[in-house]
Amino acid sequence: MIKKLILLSVIGCMTQFGFAQKKTPIYLDDSKPVEQRIEDALSRMTLEEKINLIHAQSKFSSHGVPRLGIPELWTADGPHGVRSEVLWDEWDQAGWTNDSIIAYPALTALSATWNRNMSSIYGKSLGEEARYRGKDVILGPGVNIYRTPLNGRNFEYMGEDPFLTSQMVVPYIKSVQSNGVATSVKHFALNNQETFRHTSNVIVDDRALYEIYLPPFKAAVQEGDSWTIMGAYDLYKGQHASHNQYLLNDILKGEWGYKGVVISDWGAVLDTNQAIHNGLDLEFGTWTNGLSKGTSNAYENYYLAKPYLDLIKSGKVGTKELDDKVRRVLGLAYKTSMNKNKPFGSIASEEHMAAAKQIASEGIVLLQNQKATLPINLSKTKKIAVIGENAIKMMTVGGGSSSLKVKYETLPLEGIKERFGKQTEVVYARGYVGDVGGDYNGVKSGQNLKETRSSAELIAEAVKLAKESDFVVFVGGLNKSDRQDAEGMDRESYGLPYDQDKLISELSKANKNLAVVLVSGNAVAMPWIKEVPSVLQSWYLGSEAGHAIAAVLAGDTNPSGKLPFTFPVKLEDNSAHALGEYPGNKEELAAGKGKDLKDPINITYNEGILVGYRWHDTKNIKPLFSFGHGLSYTTFEYGKVKSDKTELTANDKITFTVNVKNTGKVDGAEVVQLYISDLKSSLPRPLKELKGFDKVYLKAGESKEVSITVDRSALSFFDPVKHDWVAEPGDFEALVGSSSSDIRTKIKFTLK
Amino acid sequence: MIKKLILLSVIGCMTQFGFAQKKTPIYLDDSKPVEQRIEDALSRMTLEEKINLIHAQSKFSSHGVPRLGIPELWTADGPHGVRSEVLWDEWDQAGWTNDSIIAYPALTALSATWNRNMSSIYGKSLGEEARYRGKDVILGPGVNIYRTPLNGRNFEYMGEDPFLTSQMVVPYIKSVQSNGVATSVKHFALNNQETFRHTSNVIVDDRALYEIYLPPFKAAVQEGDSWTIMGAYDLYKGQHASHNQYLLNDILKGEWGYKGVVISDWGAVLDTNQAIHNGLDLEFGTWTNGLSKGTSNAYENYYLAKPYLDLIKSGKVGTKELDDKVRRVLGLAYKTSMNKNKPFGSIASEEHMAAAKQIASEGIVLLQNQKATLPINLSKTKKIAVIGENAIKMMTVGGGSSSLKVKYETLPLEGIKERFGKQTEVVYARGYVGDVGGDYNGVKSGQNLKETRSSAELIAEAVKLAKESDFVVFVGGLNKSDRQDAEGMDRESYGLPYDQDKLISELSKANKNLAVVLVSGNAVAMPWIKEVPSVLQSWYLGSEAGHAIAAVLAGDTNPSGKLPFTFPVKLEDNSAHALGEYPGNKEELAAGKGKDLKDPINITYNEGILVGYRWHDTKNIKPLFSFGHGLSYTTFEYGKVKSDKTELTANDKITFTVNVKNTGKVDGAEVVQLYISDLKSSLPRPLKELKGFDKVYLKAGESKEVSITVDRSALSFFDPVKHDWVAEPGDFEALVGSSSSDIRTKIKFTLK
Repeated sequence: MIKKLILLSVIGCMTQFGFAQKKTPIYLDDSKPVEQRIEDALSRMTLEEKINLIHAQSKFSSHGVPRLGIPELWTADGPHGVRSEVLWDEWDQAGWTNDSIIAYPALTALSATWNRNMSSIYGKSLGEEARYRGKDVILGPGVNIYRTPLNGRNFEYMGEDPFLTSQMVVPYIKSVQSNGVATSVKHFALNNQETFRHTSNVIVDDRALYEIYLPPFKAAVQEGDSWTIMGAYDLYKGQHASHNQYLLNDILKGEWGYKGVVISDWGAVLDTNQAIHNGLDLEFGTWTNGLSKGTSNAYENYYLAKPYLDLIKSGKVGTKELDDKVRRVLGLAYKTSMNKNKPFGSIASEEHMAAAKQIASEGIVLLQNQKATLPINLSKTKKIAVIGENAIKMMTVGGGSSSLKVKYETLPLEGIKERFGKQTEVVYARGYVGDVGGDYNGVKSGQNLKETRSSAELIAEAVKLAKESDFVVFVGGLNKSDRQDAEGMDRESYGLPYDQDKLISELSKANKNLAVVLVSGNAVAMPWIKEVPSVLQSWYLGSEAGHAIAAVLAGDTNPSGKLPFTFPVKLEDNSAHALGEYPGNKEELAAGKGKDLKDPINITYNEGILVGYRWHDTKNIKPLFSFGHGLSYTTFEYGKVKSDKTELTANDKITFTVNVKNTGKVDGAEVVQLYISDLKSSLPRPLKELKGFDKVYLKAGESKEVSITVDRSALSFFDPVKHDWVAEPGDFEALVGSSSSDIRTKIKFTLK
Repeated sequence: MIKKLILLSVIGCMTQFGFAQKKTPIYLDDSKPVEQRIEDALSRMTLEEKINLIHAQSKFSSHGVPRLGIPELWTADGPHGVRSEVLWDEWDQAGWTNDSIIAYPALTALSATWNRNMSSIYGKSLGEEARYRGKDVILGPGVNIYRTPLNGRNFEYMGEDPFLTSQMVVPYIKSVQSNGVATSVKHFALNNQETFRHTSNVIVDDRALYEIYLPPFKAAVQEGDSWTIMGAYDLYKGQHASHNQYLLNDILKGEWGYKGVVISDWGAVLDTNQAIHNGLDLEFGTWTNGLSKGTSNAYENYYLAKPYLDLIKSGKVGTKELDDKVRRVLGLAYKTSMNKNKPFGSIASEEHMAAAKQIASEGIVLLQNQKATLPINLSKTKKIAVIGENAIKMMTVGGGSSSLKVKYETLPLEGIKERFGKQTEVVYARGYVGDVGGDYNGVKSGQNLKETRSSAELIAEAVKLAKESDFVVFVGGLNKSDRQDAEGMDRESYGLPYDQDKLISELSKANKNLAVVLVSGNAVAMPWIKEVPSVLQSWYLGSEAGHAIAAVLAGDTNPSGKLPFTFPVKLEDNSAHALGEYPGNKEELAAGKGKDLKDPINITYNEGILVGYRWHDTKNIKPLFSFGHGLSYTTFEYGKVKSDKTELTANDKITFTVNVKNTGKVDGAEVVQLYISDLKSSLPRPLKELKGFDKVYLKAGESKEVSITVDRSALSFFDPVKHDWVAEPGDFEALVGSSSSDIRTKIKFTLK
């Protein structure tokens, strides 16, 4: 006997499976407001699906909601190019052949262009490559302030000045995100060194925090609208930055009203309760070294996974925080993975290669050029000696998470041979040997070339070549090996490594037609500076490095880069080393603190707001090369700066105008820099601060009016008592010049 | 002296990098006709980019045009679910955790539903899962005709009848493709066995080719508009099917006007010149076993890669064929990877699970049910013995490329326990042990469970349980091990393996309340058929297998499946074995041909058009179970069939109407089948051929009129001399019934 027979009828089937016209659910309906779509999606999700949405499922991806058709999020390391594919749960290369990309110049180089348009083409190009690679989030840009030249990761950042960094980061973010790819501005905050990066508790006064370290992040989220931000490893007020009540809840989401997603740095989450309550939204990288082997899925044990679920199920924690995180992650999905209007992206287009070259060319800084040694006068040059390992060393490989698998990297020697080889003989000697480094992304860099000769033999060979040649180009500096410009640990000293100082000295004696090209992301000591006529600061320039360097050496490109940070003569001239604690409190260092996550070490930023040129200016310590410094193959004459008013009220703007003329024989570009000096203030202020700049292109003999407008914010300092920005009425001075130490004209004005 | 200085001006930069409003190129402009977009893309591509576009870059993906932003194409094995991720260039699992999916019933089960709506929900569900997984092409469905029950891959196909297969494949294709995911109907053509699949040259007359083997492909591309089609491994007229002048150029692209993409089966390409000229568009899998290790990239050596490029560069081959292939692949991209209107898809939604269960439930065929043994009468049943390894064996794992990594698979024993366990005791004995199979997709199937007892001991245990129980459910059949229902090699005999016949016989003696549930994708011999009251043909039912089987056993689902192929009593009753050659020409077999790609073996289809029921009907050989057979828990009474006319002209249609009544006590569904018999013809024809069917759902006591309309095509045969379809004027008969051997009513009509 059959008591009940459920019949599968055609009609039942048709309605059940949506053959009858099924209404698009709100969360999938593009015509509905995104807030409504988020609420609809949220209302359909199970608790487990919500928990899944807020932590990783693999090294670089996080869960979607498969049942509802909400896609996964795929991230990739930046910030200089899209990192190659790794295995699901291991750092090893996945061995794909479709993930080679263009390497763009390191962010120090971008910053050194002082050209917001370069930041735009950078972001556009990188974003297009990330999009083609199917990435939803690119893990960058980095905007931590350059506090010490020893920081191994300075090369990924934009220098020492909050205004310059803010100005440069915003177009990058906007252009990346125009591709439907989120940026993740990092590392928020106070991650200003690599040594002790996981264990340092930074103690900094509110003025330095708000005036120096936070502004680029504020600009990134408020002006750039960066859809995500990445928490840092270090601690602030005793809490790790990736789940930090003060930085994330109070400042970022409170004072700044941030509505985007806070992503942890990989492995920066260390506590479920803090992760729940202290502003983190999306947990990545907690266990990331194949630890899921032998377990069903290590990701289930993430702090924001099962432990969070258990707390909710047991009633110990509510779901308010969870829903907030889920709303934010869903909002990110609608802008990226669920954005149907995003382009397809592209890789290594002609525009990308041109962008990489142009940014590199504009970022190179001509530090010194006595007797017009550069550009190389080909009419007098039959033979060029290229010396130095960095002429043949891949720099897109190594250095940590920013290491790339490139379609190509034109090495300096290749670029020089290509540019000069038809007109002159180009010979090469290695001169010195760097560290034998690791194997990154399956690519061995030049650093692994065999070398059995001694330093003395290498120098002798180089000197011999230098003597025989008409011009010597030394290409040296730092590299991407550990304890050079690399993630995870800082440099150990300020000087050039591998006996380069001796080599340069010898070369300068051997041939007076010498150009030293320094490849680095940090300032270095230059004990030989008076012996060498010409010095170029080239940075890590990416795929087009060799072409860009050769173009500057040849004069095809007139250098127009300006330093984004100060080069002190010696390490002790840097404020962090003069006043502040580095790499940590001395007594605690001696006691062995900082070696373990459970035993953090304090670092007090005693120098406060006096970072970089603010220190050198205020304390009158002459640097080796100043912030904003950079020469050209031509000369620029500044007229007298004028302002459109002499007094302004609180809501006014004031515009400064100056005539700049190219007084040399070749076309060129000048970065006109505007510094503001508060002539009298209730709290001590730096002598002057950068508050405006414009890069102006002038043909030989041409002149242009350059106007820069500022408002009250340019006159303000952060009052820690009022906990607010204050512009005090009184007299100010606007200083206009070619660098922070080369002020050409100035004018006073008054805030009423 | 600087002779030339190229200045990077802001203006130059702005126009160069598109900050000035850049016009969307035609190939990226959604508003332009796709033909124009294709021509625009083609005109921008380099020769190398074109060559790259037409061959694989990894196991399952092919190149895009990164420079232009034309995405890659990602394929995945179907046809029963989306295959899990493998490594870039190895078959090993990639170890991802986001690639578990729902397994839908095997295509034999789908076909057995005789319900086009089931095909629609199948395609919709599978397409959504493929879409969520980011796939552009799903490698299926398979529509090779069931010629012999030994074919190891029959389970992936839709049975022996070209009309049924055509009707079932079209909605599948349309529904998959509504997700922006292409189907790849396979394997084109004449791949009707696995043994010698790479080396068999099929000799078949044109009538059988056009009437039996090609119609499902024609329907798939013309009615279903399948965007791709996959070439087969076998040879036809001495050319491998994946680059075959006759099949691809003459028939598919010539006679049928196909504009889509011909994809090779993996490793089916063996000759560059044939691949260029004989209709292939996209080469996959040529070297697919990690052979790129140690070379820069094995894919460059694909037949349609460097060898083709070299031929073009040397001028030996023009670019006409290349451009045609590229246009087709671009056309595919616009429909899939570049289709911005496609949905996001989803995985394991409630609808998907319901679809998997409903298709499975409707596909199960009640072959025999004496004394209403089924459904199980729970009022008389205190204890159910479940016997047989297939009750505990995963069937979504193994069998070749269709093997899946499932979110779950409800095993028959689990389903039975879940359905009956609260009301009765359910006990289990294994009864027999299948092959110890391999490790598929990182999942071990039940076949690897340890077993040390002998067959006699296992049988004794099962018989004891059977005797102690009120009802016995035996779950056996074939499985997905090699030489069962599995790709790559055929079955070795028609009988059930592993001593099951003996076991079933013993069980039938032990307990008369016995239901035999056969899990297979092929017909099997049933020497015990008279001893067993009830037999269910269950197929490979996917994730919901256990639930669907239990629902039928309990009567929750009234079975309504019909056989899509004939079950002969013995192998020799099958026409391929009676008349045709299998697995190849006897003399050539004896001579050892077919063992090597260079030494193919001929297989002549001597049986011609007399495949399946066409053979049994025409030669009056009574089968074990007929094509179209399938019982119900209710009974259906057919009225007298009427037609809307008695004569029709060439362009007329004729509609047959019959009243069908559910004369039993429970609701149920009947598949009303219409066969056409050509009473006199110039060429011999089968006794009758299926030309229409409709599945009708009837409540107990309800009756409905069922109308089926056919046109001249239903009356036609293929005239090999005219090389065209011919409908000869004269008398025909329409036969309407419940199976091919259970005709209930008939009517004559005349074609003028």
